[in-house]
Amino acid sequence: MSASLCLSIQVHQNDNVAVIVHDGGLDVGCQLVDGTILLEHIPQGHKVAIRQIPLDQPVIRYGEIIGYATTTIAPGAWVKEADLRMPEPPALADLPIATRTSTPAAALEGYSFEGYRNRDGSVGTRNVLAITTSVQCVAGVTEYVVQQIRQKLLPHYPNVDDIVGLTHSYGCGVAINAPAAIVPIRTLQNLMRNPNFGDEIMVLGLGCEKLQPDQLLKARSQIREPGSEASTVSILSLQDEQLLGFGGMIEGILALAEQHLQRLNQRRREPCPAAELVVGVQCGGSDALSGLTANPAVGFAADLIVRAGGSVMFSEVTEVRDAIHLLTPRVADQETGQALLREMAWFDEYLHTGRTDRSANTTPGNKRGGLANIVEKAMGSIIKSGSSAIVDVIAPGERIRKKGLTFAATPASDFICGTLQLAAGMNIHVFTTGRGTPYNLPMAPVIKVATNSRLAKQWYDLIDIDAGTIATGESSIEQVGWQIFHKMLDVASGREQTAADRLGIFNDLVLFNPAPVT
Amino acid sequence: MSASLCLSIQVHQNDNVAVIVHDGGLDVGCQLVDGTILLEHIPQGHKVAIRQIPLDQPVIRYGEIIGYATTTIAPGAWVKEADLRMPEPPALADLPIATRTSTPAAALEGYSFEGYRNRDGSVGTRNVLAITTSVQCVAGVTEYVVQQIRQKLLPHYPNVDDIVGLTHSYGCGVAINAPAAIVPIRTLQNLMRNPNFGDEIMVLGLGCEKLQPDQLLKARSQIREPGSEASTVSILSLQDEQLLGFGGMIEGILALAEQHLQRLNQRRREPCPAAELVVGVQCGGSDALSGLTANPAVGFAADLIVRAGGSVMFSEVTEVRDAIHLLTPRVADQETGQALLREMAWFDEYLHTGRTDRSANTTPGNKRGGLANIVEKAMGSIIKSGSSAIVDVIAPGERIRKKGLTFAATPASDFICGTLQLAAGMNIHVFTTGRGTPYNLPMAPVIKVATNSRLAKQWYDLIDIDAGTIATGESSIEQVGWQIFHKMLDVASGREQTAADRLGIFNDLVLFNPAPVT
Ligand SMILES: [Ca+2]
Ligand SMILES: [Ca+2]
Ligand SMILES: [Ca+2]
Ligand SMILES: [Ca+2]
Ligand SMILES: [Ca+2]
Repeated sequence: MSASLCLSIQVHQNDNVAVIVHDGGLDVGCQLVDGTILLEHIPQGHKVAIRQIPLDQPVIRYGEIIGYATTTIAPGAWVKEADLRMPEPPALADLPIATRTSTPAAALEGYSFEGYRNRDGSVGTRNVLAITTSVQCVAGVTEYVVQQIRQKLLPHYPNVDDIVGLTHSYGCGVAINAPAAIVPIRTLQNLMRNPNFGDEIMVLGLGCEKLQPDQLLKARSQIREPGSEASTVSILSLQDEQLLGFGGMIEGILALAEQHLQRLNQRRREPCPAAELVVGVQCGGSDALSGLTANPAVGFAADLIVRAGGSVMFSEVTEVRDAIHLLTPRVADQETGQALLREMAWFDEYLHTGRTDRSANTTPGNKRGGLANIVEKAMGSIIKSGSSAIVDVIAPGERIRKKGLTFAATPASDFICGTLQLAAGMNIHVFTTGRGTPYNLPMAPVIKVATNSRLAKQWYDLIDIDAGTIATGESSIEQVGWQIFHKMLDVASGREQTAADRLGIFNDLVLFNPAPVT
Repeated sequence: MSASLCLSIQVHQNDNVAVIVHDGGLDVGCQLVDGTILLEHIPQGHKVAIRQIPLDQPVIRYGEIIGYATTTIAPGAWVKEADLRMPEPPALADLPIATRTSTPAAALEGYSFEGYRNRDGSVGTRNVLAITTSVQCVAGVTEYVVQQIRQKLLPHYPNVDDIVGLTHSYGCGVAINAPAAIVPIRTLQNLMRNPNFGDEIMVLGLGCEKLQPDQLLKARSQIREPGSEASTVSILSLQDEQLLGFGGMIEGILALAEQHLQRLNQRRREPCPAAELVVGVQCGGSDALSGLTANPAVGFAADLIVRAGGSVMFSEVTEVRDAIHLLTPRVADQETGQALLREMAWFDEYLHTGRTDRSANTTPGNKRGGLANIVEKAMGSIIKSGSSAIVDVIAPGERIRKKGLTFAATPASDFICGTLQLAAGMNIHVFTTGRGTPYNLPMAPVIKVATNSRLAKQWYDLIDIDAGTIATGESSIEQVGWQIFHKMLDVASGREQTAADRLGIFNDLVLFNPAPVT
């Protein structure tokens, strides 16, 4: 095998490891471009020492310490998980705040998509009737009635894309007065306000639940005139004495749904500037290529969105925690910096109370994919945020407040993160994966970007964009970044469907409930 | 209104309150049978003082103190929530243990049902193919493929009742090494072993998840010869390199499902003694009649099952906690008593850590239904357990070990309790409701018993048995108890469908995860 085929990537000049990007890995004796000769076979995505690393000395990737050598590592050796002792997470005190706020890049003009404009100015990328539920008890009836509406009513309302039930496992049998209950409650309050639901609010409750529909609508009534609400808000409780039996419930729900469908059906797509996109970025099933291919490309696309005046959210607290010292310099001001640290501290405490820590994040798949620990994973994960200043930080379940780059604090769990980003107002989702996951949501389009070409080929009908071409040199981070940007505009316009939407596979919402159940 | 029509119930001779059972409540001036004259209108299910209750003196119902008067209450007055100060829960130290173990009632012989006998001796009331999932990432694909199997394969296997996906929100993005993670993990390990799944184990995983299918099967491999497992266990990971794309996944899953369906299709119902029933009892959406009508009738039926040699589980820790002093005397031995106290203490601590307590259990619906607080609710809730000795206590997610009455520790949350009872091995579920909830599960039949005739009439197509006739004197606790017993045998035999099964509405599983997500 010639040296030119021995593909590996060293990200930063200080790094003493490089990552094997060659499909299938590299064999003993292969010589890398820097002259390192492999002492053993090393799988794709795994690390090779490119200098001698003495015992207890730092192992450096991305220019950052990802661990300390537990043995002396020879150049050309495979650097395995067991060869690294994980460093302590950066202390949250005395971090530099707002010291490296980048001068804003030139505005990017002239990009637009075809969206559904809402009365509050937000823009939907879909025109969906969402049925909010106040309690898990109504989930079965909701799923039943969603099918009925889809079959019986939807054909008469061709401009409505779909109907979704916002079912969940919260609302009763939960400690609604525990301090942490604020998280799931505000998530539900804000989910129904997602721009893709066209400002039509239809709530299905039981009647006797702890979380009453009124409480769900509280946030809403604060932002609207009572008069203007009347036309778009409806509430139905299954225990309502007017409804006779299950038949009566279904009839009642169909009648309400029809009113909402009539209004939604009058809406049309119109040209909207790219500034109206609210992009949530996330990764799941990561490998060591995530931080070299898909995540940098998503970061490049995130910068494009910010330059176009749009909103980008990055999330996943446990994948940010070990890189926090790289993020606090990027916040716009002291207040945002303190908010970022507050979210880190809250999650540290949340994990500590459950007698675990951030190392619980990494999976067997991450490790097989070459990610030795959460520190290495975090360095690759935050690259999705691009290089813009962080203008705001929102707590789990809160709604986004500003254009530009926001840190939306969420767990890294794919479905919980996606649910919280939807509640924050996400109208399009970009999801990178290395090991592969068939993640999709019915509420907003999910563009899936593979970190390696092997996955993109194997899951040819599930992956939207192959960023693995960056590792092989077939394309650049910039090229794939632009590809993602254009894909977002096409998908947001309804001109193009994502792979998973074509197949029709969808995951349920999962609420983040840090409070006890009862 | 004549006195004979002024229906109220005083449960215990020491009670200083009675409960109005008259449909629509009773008006001022009504005279109860004991002579008390109502001072105001009191709604159905609410309490009337039948003696003067001075300030700070105990309010007594079921012969137990449910609170202390916050004001002097006159005879005939409506005793409202605000009139009661809640007592402290009974201390867990120094309770009498195994002091009142009843002499076993006469064995009940000659009752049987038509069930599916499994190789391990357990008996299914259904013949269902369950697809276990190791991680939430595969839920969307699972739901898709369940529909495919139902449409394409099931018609060829007429002896198979249905197929269900055991989807959930666990498996990755969770702190799998936190101490409390044992709860969801063993729940998943045991769910697949539910007797209604005929010993066919089909696991769908992703590949890179934290909770690997192997770990899910661990409990199983401990109880079986490796050889005998081979024929009934199959595992498929979506990331398997043999599977090309989504199409390949679906093909692969269908092929595996067909093997399981072929074996399940060979099974036939056969007569089995009632001793093979594993009954889970639960209440949800309770009112003040719950403890007077449906729950005592279920308790009577539970005693019948125990007398017939069967297994009954009652659950709902927060609804047992305030009545714990009434339960410790009923345990069979010291060890069981200590296990019961351990579960109470564990939940006290769990709620305390979340900065709440057992009072978080009661709902607005409970209160509108006349239940002033968790103490009063608990007294009515434990009646479902009947009068048998408590022979065993299992922790959340554990499998039942003994015939007779077991306390299966679970939260009171309907879906979490139901899921844990399924994991414990429940093959039939009895669920009482006063306010009304359309609760149903696809894994085991759920017989719904209304506590009042108003609900039974309004939800005529959703309720299986009306226990409200006990309040009006039309039937006795014994009569409704026998009715429930016979309904269990009919439904377990597949001779009769429950109301919710006829309608086809089902709720999802909800796992109890007391550990953090990441
Ligand atoms: Ca991630
Ligand atoms: Ca994630
Ligand atoms: Ca209950
Ligand atoms: Ca319950
Ligand atoms: Ca579902």
